[in-house]
Amino acid sequence: MITILTGGTGGAKFVDGLRNVVPPEELTIVVNTGDDLRLWGLYVAPDLDSITYMLAGKLSRERGWGLQDDTFSCLQAMGQLGQPVWFHAGDHDLATHIFRSQMLADGKTLTEATAEITSRLGIKARVLPMSDSRVETRVMTPSGEFSFEEYFVQRWFQDPVESVRYAGASEAKPAPGVLEAIRSADLVLLAPSNPVSSIAPILAVPGIRETLLESRARIAAVSPIVGGAAVSGPAGTLMAAQRFAVSVAGVADFYRDFLDLLVVDVQDATAAEELKKSGMNVLCTPAILGSKEDRIALAKSVLEEALPPPATPVPAAPEQP
Amino acid sequence: MITILTGGTGGAKFVDGLRNVVPPEELTIVVNTGDDLRLWGLYVAPDLDSITYMLAGKLSRERGWGLQDDTFSCLQAMGQLGQPVWFHAGDHDLATHIFRSQMLADGKTLTEATAEITSRLGIKARVLPMSDSRVETRVMTPSGEFSFEEYFVQRWFQDPVESVRYAGASEAKPAPGVLEAIRSADLVLLAPSNPVSSIAPILAVPGIRETLLESRARIAAVSPIVGGAAVSGPAGTLMAAQRFAVSVAGVADFYRDFLDLLVVDVQDATAAEELKKSGMNVLCTPAILGSKEDRIALAKSVLEEALPPPATPVPAAPEQP
Repeated sequence: MITILTGGTGGAKFVDGLRNVVPPEELTIVVNTGDDLRLWGLYVAPDLDSITYMLAGKLSRERGWGLQDDTFSCLQAMGQLGQPVWFHAGDHDLATHIFRSQMLADGKTLTEATAEITSRLGIKARVLPMSDSRVETRVMTPSGEFSFEEYFVQRWFQDPVESVRYAGASEAKPAPGVLEAIRSADLVLLAPSNPVSSIAPILAVPGIRETLLESRARIAAVSPIVGGAAVSGPAGTLMAAQRFAVSVAGVADFYRDFLDLLVVDVQDATAAEELKKSGMNVLCTPAILGSKEDRIALAKSVLEEALPPPATPVPAAPEQP
Repeated sequence: MITILTGGTGGAKFVDGLRNVVPPEELTIVVNTGDDLRLWGLYVAPDLDSITYMLAGKLSRERGWGLQDDTFSCLQAMGQLGQPVWFHAGDHDLATHIFRSQMLADGKTLTEATAEITSRLGIKARVLPMSDSRVETRVMTPSGEFSFEEYFVQRWFQDPVESVRYAGASEAKPAPGVLEAIRSADLVLLAPSNPVSSIAPILAVPGIRETLLESRARIAAVSPIVGGAAVSGPAGTLMAAQRFAVSVAGVADFYRDFLDLLVVDVQDATAAEELKKSGMNVLCTPAILGSKEDRIALAKSVLEEALPPPATPVPAAPEQP
């Protein structure tokens, strides 16, 4: 059994590789909900959606978010009604937001709503929100504090970042099944998602970090930093704001207290050697996730390195005469 | 000032004529909300929407409901999620439902939400729901009781109808402005909408019928029954279920206690003569509302017949020497 902690875009690419090499029933995916927002009164969970759409084979490859071939008529009409249009909800995508919002309004938890959505889309992997409580990643900038999606999408992550906090985290509880999925896994994988805005909110939910520390599972992280910069998005800016080096060493520091293996791209071979000297297990392998082949190759490399080899078969006892 | 009581489809066509011959600022349109429903958790007001879209020049002419050139991607996705798809909300149309639902959830009344929507669409006429209270038209059939939209759209109005009731009406209050609009109008018009399912719910809100009876305004109705059958929809079935003749005489009976003028189509010339003998004022004029020209012609005929002629100018006093 494999448990993955992940955000949206980068994480979805990693999950895409895994779903092609591991039976989906063996995957539990714990997803960041720190970016969740109310859009037009609807509850939108960007990372849950990206993971769900990827698992359903419907994530837009061009955009990296939303659905393939989606249209934006409702968004346009919302603009005509004077409503905010910076968050690009597609018409097809909107069905997920409406259905989820209805279930939440009817008293279902986010975990239950997520299970309904994934089941109706034929997804066999288990997708769990990190928490059913509201935890909001807040980004402090010289222009004020913003929700993550405001900072990231509405403001194009152009603001200098002073700090990041996870509002509500201290009172939050892990969603049902999350701690068990970490405890009982053979392998826990941290996807190459933004450590500060995708993985740290998960770790900020009381009990999750502690369970990682105690778990007997192997714990491996794939670095979203390659060659000293984020593959995409504001991971570099946010890591620097949190006083981490924007490097694979910074990623290692971010996860050091529970990490068994760090996976870095071949561009970081030199840094990998340094890390190994410091006692960190490092796998250096192509980790830029463009094509489907890249994704499958990374998943295979990581599993090969991180999963314990099958036990040597016990020799049969000599037959009794 | 003209106040119109109306439902959706037929009423919208009548309103289309009026808006072309009367300055929109002089129109107050009181709309049936007995068909309103929750769709996917969203508050949908079919008649308010039809009237609003017509006034905005965006009502689909082909369908008679919804928006011109709308698409149905979200609906399709909702079907994939196992949600009901019998009510065909278009992608563009959905913006209205989402925006209205958000305003209602934020504590605005339906009157306030309607004013926001019409104002943002540049509509100058005043559109009022009949009530801010929930009144639901319920149709009893041998297969059980249904909401009007279930009976009409989901079940294609194929069920025999035993009776119709307006659940919640006795506790409802007219929306702010409705009674004043009836009291202060020069003319109150009942659109050629289904008397039982579009006009009667309005009349069932306590105070509205009483105000019509007391109003000094002229009150005219356009018959939705032409040649002994409804122009469209289940008006015939529902009138018969309520023990009214499916004829212009039945329409006259439906409105008799407050009606000053009944407008009927030229096909009903003979019936019109009979009605005149019974003391009813009747205008017999082309009342099938296909083209824009038909609609404008009907509006002009009705206004000419129903509105008092301008007062004869008082002759100027002879000039004092």
